[in-house]
Amino acid sequence: MPSRIPRRMIRALRHIIAPPKRRKGTHAKRTGLAPGTLVYTGAPRDRATTLSVTSYDAETLEELPGASIDDAVAMRGRRETTWIDVVGLEDVEAIREIGERFGIDVLVLEDILATGHRPKLDVQDGHVLLVVRMFLVDEGATEVRSEQVSIIVGADYVLTFQEDEGDVFDPVRRRLREGTGRIRGWGADYLAYALVDVMVDHYFVVLEHLAESAEDVEQVVLEAEGTDLVRAIYRLRRHNIALRRAVWPMRELTMELLRGEIPIIKPRVQPFLRDLHDHAVEAMETVEAQRDLLGGLMELHLTTVSNRMNEVMKVLSIVATIFVPLTFLAGIYGMNFEYMPELGVRWAYPALLGVMFVVFLGLVAYFRSRRWF
Amino acid sequence: MPSRIPRRMIRALRHIIAPPKRRKGTHAKRTGLAPGTLVYTGAPRDRATTLSVTSYDAETLEELPGASIDDAVAMRGRRETTWIDVVGLEDVEAIREIGERFGIDVLVLEDILATGHRPKLDVQDGHVLLVVRMFLVDEGATEVRSEQVSIIVGADYVLTFQEDEGDVFDPVRRRLREGTGRIRGWGADYLAYALVDVMVDHYFVVLEHLAESAEDVEQVVLEAEGTDLVRAIYRLRRHNIALRRAVWPMRELTMELLRGEIPIIKPRVQPFLRDLHDHAVEAMETVEAQRDLLGGLMELHLTTVSNRMNEVMKVLSIVATIFVPLTFLAGIYGMNFEYMPELGVRWAYPALLGVMFVVFLGLVAYFRSRRWF
Amino acid sequence: MPSRIPRRMIRALRHIIAPPKRRKGTHAKRTGLAPGTLVYTGAPRDRATTLSVTSYDAETLEELPGASIDDAVAMRGRRETTWIDVVGLEDVEAIREIGERFGIDVLVLEDILATGHRPKLDVQDGHVLLVVRMFLVDEGATEVRSEQVSIIVGADYVLTFQEDEGDVFDPVRRRLREGTGRIRGWGADYLAYALVDVMVDHYFVVLEHLAESAEDVEQVVLEAEGTDLVRAIYRLRRHNIALRRAVWPMRELTMELLRGEIPIIKPRVQPFLRDLHDHAVEAMETVEAQRDLLGGLMELHLTTVSNRMNEVMKVLSIVATIFVPLTFLAGIYGMNFEYMPELGVRWAYPALLGVMFVVFLGLVAYFRSRRWF
Amino acid sequence: MPSRIPRRMIRALRHIIAPPKRRKGTHAKRTGLAPGTLVYTGAPRDRATTLSVTSYDAETLEELPGASIDDAVAMRGRRETTWIDVVGLEDVEAIREIGERFGIDVLVLEDILATGHRPKLDVQDGHVLLVVRMFLVDEGATEVRSEQVSIIVGADYVLTFQEDEGDVFDPVRRRLREGTGRIRGWGADYLAYALVDVMVDHYFVVLEHLAESAEDVEQVVLEAEGTDLVRAIYRLRRHNIALRRAVWPMRELTMELLRGEIPIIKPRVQPFLRDLHDHAVEAMETVEAQRDLLGGLMELHLTTVSNRMNEVMKVLSIVATIFVPLTFLAGIYGMNFEYMPELGVRWAYPALLGVMFVVFLGLVAYFRSRRWF
Amino acid sequence: MPSRIPRRMIRALRHIIAPPKRRKGTHAKRTGLAPGTLVYTGAPRDRATTLSVTSYDAETLEELPGASIDDAVAMRGRRETTWIDVVGLEDVEAIREIGERFGIDVLVLEDILATGHRPKLDVQDGHVLLVVRMFLVDEGATEVRSEQVSIIVGADYVLTFQEDEGDVFDPVRRRLREGTGRIRGWGADYLAYALVDVMVDHYFVVLEHLAESAEDVEQVVLEAEGTDLVRAIYRLRRHNIALRRAVWPMRELTMELLRGEIPIIKPRVQPFLRDLHDHAVEAMETVEAQRDLLGGLMELHLTTVSNRMNEVMKVLSIVATIFVPLTFLAGIYGMNFEYMPELGVRWAYPALLGVMFVVFLGLVAYFRSRRWF
Repeated sequence: MPSRIPRRMIRALRHIIAPPKRRKGTHAKRTGLAPGTLVYTGAPRDRATTLSVTSYDAETLEELPGASIDDAVAMRGRRETTWIDVVGLEDVEAIREIGERFGIDVLVLEDILATGHRPKLDVQDGHVLLVVRMFLVDEGATEVRSEQVSIIVGADYVLTFQEDEGDVFDPVRRRLREGTGRIRGWGADYLAYALVDVMVDHYFVVLEHLAESAEDVEQVVLEAEGTDLVRAIYRLRRHNIALRRAVWPMRELTMELLRGEIPIIKPRVQPFLRDLHDHAVEAMETVEAQRDLLGGLMELHLTTVSNRMNEVMKVLSIVATIFVPLTFLAGIYGMNFEYMPELGVRWAYPALLGVMFVVFLGLVAYFRSRRWF
Repeated sequence: MPSRIPRRMIRALRHIIAPPKRRKGTHAKRTGLAPGTLVYTGAPRDRATTLSVTSYDAETLEELPGASIDDAVAMRGRRETTWIDVVGLEDVEAIREIGERFGIDVLVLEDILATGHRPKLDVQDGHVLLVVRMFLVDEGATEVRSEQVSIIVGADYVLTFQEDEGDVFDPVRRRLREGTGRIRGWGADYLAYALVDVMVDHYFVVLEHLAESAEDVEQVVLEAEGTDLVRAIYRLRRHNIALRRAVWPMRELTMELLRGEIPIIKPRVQPFLRDLHDHAVEAMETVEAQRDLLGGLMELHLTTVSNRMNEVMKVLSIVATIFVPLTFLAGIYGMNFEYMPELGVRWAYPALLGVMFVVFLGLVAYFRSRRWF
Repeated sequence: MPSRIPRRMIRALRHIIAPPKRRKGTHAKRTGLAPGTLVYTGAPRDRATTLSVTSYDAETLEELPGASIDDAVAMRGRRETTWIDVVGLEDVEAIREIGERFGIDVLVLEDILATGHRPKLDVQDGHVLLVVRMFLVDEGATEVRSEQVSIIVGADYVLTFQEDEGDVFDPVRRRLREGTGRIRGWGADYLAYALVDVMVDHYFVVLEHLAESAEDVEQVVLEAEGTDLVRAIYRLRRHNIALRRAVWPMRELTMELLRGEIPIIKPRVQPFLRDLHDHAVEAMETVEAQRDLLGGLMELHLTTVSNRMNEVMKVLSIVATIFVPLTFLAGIYGMNFEYMPELGVRWAYPALLGVMFVVFLGLVAYFRSRRWF
Repeated sequence: MPSRIPRRMIRALRHIIAPPKRRKGTHAKRTGLAPGTLVYTGAPRDRATTLSVTSYDAETLEELPGASIDDAVAMRGRRETTWIDVVGLEDVEAIREIGERFGIDVLVLEDILATGHRPKLDVQDGHVLLVVRMFLVDEGATEVRSEQVSIIVGADYVLTFQEDEGDVFDPVRRRLREGTGRIRGWGADYLAYALVDVMVDHYFVVLEHLAESAEDVEQVVLEAEGTDLVRAIYRLRRHNIALRRAVWPMRELTMELLRGEIPIIKPRVQPFLRDLHDHAVEAMETVEAQRDLLGGLMELHLTTVSNRMNEVMKVLSIVATIFVPLTFLAGIYGMNFEYMPELGVRWAYPALLGVMFVVFLGLVAYFRSRRWF
Repeated sequence: MPSRIPRRMIRALRHIIAPPKRRKGTHAKRTGLAPGTLVYTGAPRDRATTLSVTSYDAETLEELPGASIDDAVAMRGRRETTWIDVVGLEDVEAIREIGERFGIDVLVLEDILATGHRPKLDVQDGHVLLVVRMFLVDEGATEVRSEQVSIIVGADYVLTFQEDEGDVFDPVRRRLREGTGRIRGWGADYLAYALVDVMVDHYFVVLEHLAESAEDVEQVVLEAEGTDLVRAIYRLRRHNIALRRAVWPMRELTMELLRGEIPIIKPRVQPFLRDLHDHAVEAMETVEAQRDLLGGLMELHLTTVSNRMNEVMKVLSIVATIFVPLTFLAGIYGMNFEYMPELGVRWAYPALLGVMFVVFLGLVAYFRSRRWF
């Protein structure tokens, strides 16, 4: 089948997306250790821990890449907000020292090092821990990487911990440098928000990237698919998925309108809004019922294809199974051996025809008995 | 298989519904911008932003298509309610100016321009933002389009933002012009309701359109399907889906009756209503169990078809695999070469028959050993 | 495959259940109309609207089929309870007049005419609207029909609106006439309850009818299925479904017992009830895990069948693909043309045997290279 | 395929479990009757209603099998607790009389007779109704039966209603007779608990019985399955199911620990418990993600098998489709008719070879054009 | 197919993971016993009950393996915390005695012995019961075992009950002996936490072990899969699963941020956080929609493969079914019998050709009538 698809498409597909890599034995490392024991559980990256410090207020900004821990602590007090970006978590001692200097609990440090965590929020005295997974599509867009980013938000500083080089924070850095908008004047919590926001935004970039890959695959599959029937069902399904995404949130939306807490919506419109809500719910249920139906339709089609092929196979099977042995018999007596006594016997030919007829009837009877036709 | 279906049906299917189009790279555009940066993320439409203003009260109505922003602002105060319909969002500056003139926050404008949003409701001081996705079936009913419509409802005005020409609001416009019913006298909130309502109503038009397409497909598939068995199962499933839609809401309905807050329902009927509620729940569970069962039945049928085909294949395979090599042997000695020394040997014929018998037994033994019969 | 099933069974299946009919373009009719505009959206039935009035109290009952609207209004006050059964909704004007005479809001009338609604309950001042979907199995039990029934319950009257002739209310009518039980003395709310109850009861009749059809299909499928294995899995699944229906509600039941609000259950039994509740939850989880497992088992079996068929196909394919060309070669030299120069060449026979051997080896090598054996 | 499985295993499977029996037309009987009309809706059992009365207190116990209703009423007051076990519900009049003598509402009696109810709890004045479905595995363990058991718990009596002979209450009867433990001294509510408990316990017996059957089937399927790949996926799935059952409840468990209402757990452990809870949730999510992945893996394998078979079929098809007509042509000129003019023509042989070559090329071109290779 | 996979890989798969073992007849043993009757329901292990006692406070620690019950009771008071680890539950009497000596209710003991429980938490006066399932991967990592661990936490002691030798508690024992961290000083509740924590941690070890096995299987399957198309879809699915795990918890996380109870997050950031939350929800919905789409894509591909194979089969079937009988006819007249009267007839050859042509036309017409081409 693939030969029907242009070879360059196939080749394109091959490298679109590499499978996500798995880290080996992550959890086995940690099991049973006392809480608070610091162990880095991510993949080995062979890199030292580096710090980049950015200290800023509404007017001024100072950047110090490749800072030492002392530098970072020193720069903290100097301006309104300081962002210390820590890259590389293998050097556990460095992480512990940073933790001590910034008054971070060892349990929190443990969470930072145990990469592979589900996203979580942890409110501590004096700071908040945010653990978020960052997804990156690299330059050539042939690979999707992900790493854990831990953000500690204090009153006047933000600490970010990344596993490896390369992140999605460049737009934030640019905005910091340009000093436009709120980002320079609104402090540490806004910076943390901006960092999380840019990561969530990147989910859409990755989703879009995956969607494009899916669409390439879809095009290849649809091109290979000969019947308009299947294409039609598939398209209806896609529309159904699109509608679902629009209709589901309408229920909440109309419910919120209904709650009557919006001053601009006067009470006399309430009955109409209830009607609207009913419609939204009904649309939702119709979409769901249609989804069920389309699933059933595809299955019905598959069954039909199966059944039909079954019929085809049966006929082939019967014909072949009947004639192949008969042809063999004819072949035997078509051989040119000089000494084949049967060939000279007068009644041999009609006898063989009779034998063939008996074999024929026997096979037909056998198939009948198995109800194959 | 498709050859069995009338060709004109197939051709009809081909153009029923085009797949929904995808916008490329939408999110990549926005990622990492400062909140409040206005960027239009929809598909390029190559059209200027145009405004149509409709200003009305219970008695009078004035329409101004192709208005300027100044016109729109001027008309706002003139009558009780003003509807400014903005079409085309690519001219970001125009949108920003409209926003400023109507006192709309830049964050709200950002939501309006970031088409592709899920439906949402945002209550602001002095106005409400509604983001709804509008689905349209175009004239020839061969395409389903969708675009984002953002509605801002103020005390005396409604602002609607559409991406492109063509909407589902004509009935509302007609009602406004005709001035019958409540629409002219009930102000901005009612107008906003009417606009959302007509969009939700259009979901049903689209759903119906999809349902008709699905039914055409269904007819084609059912026509192609030879066995009444599969048709019967499919029909039972359709009935089950229809019943589900009727039975599920009965649970809520009877529960609401039970709650005893309806003055017209006297307390003495309560025990009976509880009984009714029990029945509704039971019906629902029966419907669900039946659904499971029908799914299992289809699967059972598919398995049966698979198994049976397997049997057929086995017989074919055995017969062909046994006789094909034997026929080849017979073919060899049926050749007319002048110098085939075996042909002159007296015991060659019985020897060959013996060889054939050995091959036969060998193959039978092989199949036995693989447990094929 | 179907030929194995007795033909009469197949024929029986064919007419068991007709697919539910679809109404065309229902929603397109309504879209964008002002709320309160009355439009009948059901299928055209070509029948006038008729009213049957039944007026009764505990002692007396008066029936007036084919009443006019005036009759209906007149009869309303005469006895304790009056039931006006309106059949046929196409005559929108008649419906509007009935609405006006009984003080029913136009929005409610709209709901009544917009057949195809999901079941809903609407509490108004002075009356309650119930919209329920009625399912009927017709006499010969070959068709399942459904229509929307709207019930308006006032203090002393019940109005029912049906789309077409034929309903499931006869038992209620009989009970009214016979005057036994509560129905004559308990007023309008009880009558409404009785009507909804009989419709919900009819869901079970329809479900049972579908279940019988499903069972006929099941029998046909199981009869066609040759292997006990598949039957066994299917049976286990059926048992699992049966158990689920018994076990799931036990959780609620035991939870209710646990809540300790039943005076007859003394507190000292509470710990045991908690134990019972734990058991019920555990049984439920076991049922669910078993369900998963049985699904996996069926899939495993299907995979096995696939794999095995694959094996069979491979052997067939290899044998046929090897011997078919060789047999062709032998066939060539079995032809009786007078001028076939090769036939006279001395080394032609061994040469051909050599060629055949080379072809044989080549094909075997090809299959090896593709890892087919 | 089944021929590969030892025949005795197959035979064993055949009778493991009979499919659950269905009762015909249950609901049609009841539809539309006035509430409170007593109709037995179960399967006809052809047996009279019999009563067994057991009256006991902590010291004494009196059993009266085959009691009359008068006996039952008489024995009620005699000791602290009386258990009246009613078997056989077809004699509606007897049930009604029992109801009247024990002050049971006719609506409750209706529920008792309408077997096929979902389990329910109904709290009445002075007594509680429990409806539970009892599952029994009969002696030879070849059939799973179920019947509805209704239990009425009064202050000093328990009434049980069963449809037919045979129940799971023998252990309770034995404990009553032996008089050990609490059962004799703790009254009617404890007896009711004991009866429900033994029924819930029996669910596990049935589940275990089904699990054993499933395991037999599994063994047969796995034995038939040739590839270790499929077995490996299936085993991983089984492990996943086992883990799910252990991990899901851990979330609740840790949540309950977290709630801080257990005096023995000191507050200082709370942060660690929150960590534990996070881990439990993460484990749950990992289990779920793995479940998804394993499902995808099985599907991938099935697709692979399909694709590969496709390849095999293609080669077979091409070879057979090319050589079968050529062999036919050779066969034609291998016939021994005396009058075959072509045989004598000098250029006939090369011409035929040419024709064959053209056919060969034509077929190859056809397959190319269809992209089969 | 498996032959294409390196044999050593297959062999590796075979022993990766043994299926979980099932205990026979567990529940049948317990059914109907009076609550509080102690019966061990696990698999027979043939081992006596042994106790290991560890008594410790912050400074000192005493271990006594193979202790008697008296020893255990004696050691309890001696230091701050005592851990009694009971292994082997078959000796019911021993368990009962331990229960009595530590004041544990017989109902709790019953739960401990009824292995196979779902995890539960039971708060009693003076102690807490935790039932957790422990999973172990044994040394060679070829088997996953599980057993029930019951933990009773009192004020100054922890009792653990295990079914068999071998547990995952060694890291806890080591931490106790080393006396570092909190574990020695924080008492019984912390010990219990540590034990549960190490078991939950081990879930990840088992999950990782399963994931590695799944990955081996995946590699084998992907290696066997020839088309890049299927691989691409599968990879997209894996990415989708990975994204889901990251995106779902973001909803909760942002919701928690929004709740406004974190002092470090200033109110002015709230609107931005609401935006962030909206994005997270939208990302989640996009992930879900994509998941649906990818499932549909795989199904579409499978259908395509089915359809295409159908086409291939049809051509093969038609060619074979037409030429096989014709070749048989040619074979008949290629036989060398001396007495075949037809061979001498002048018009026999053209007549046979005519017959063949008629057969050919007949078969073509038959296939046409079945719409096979």
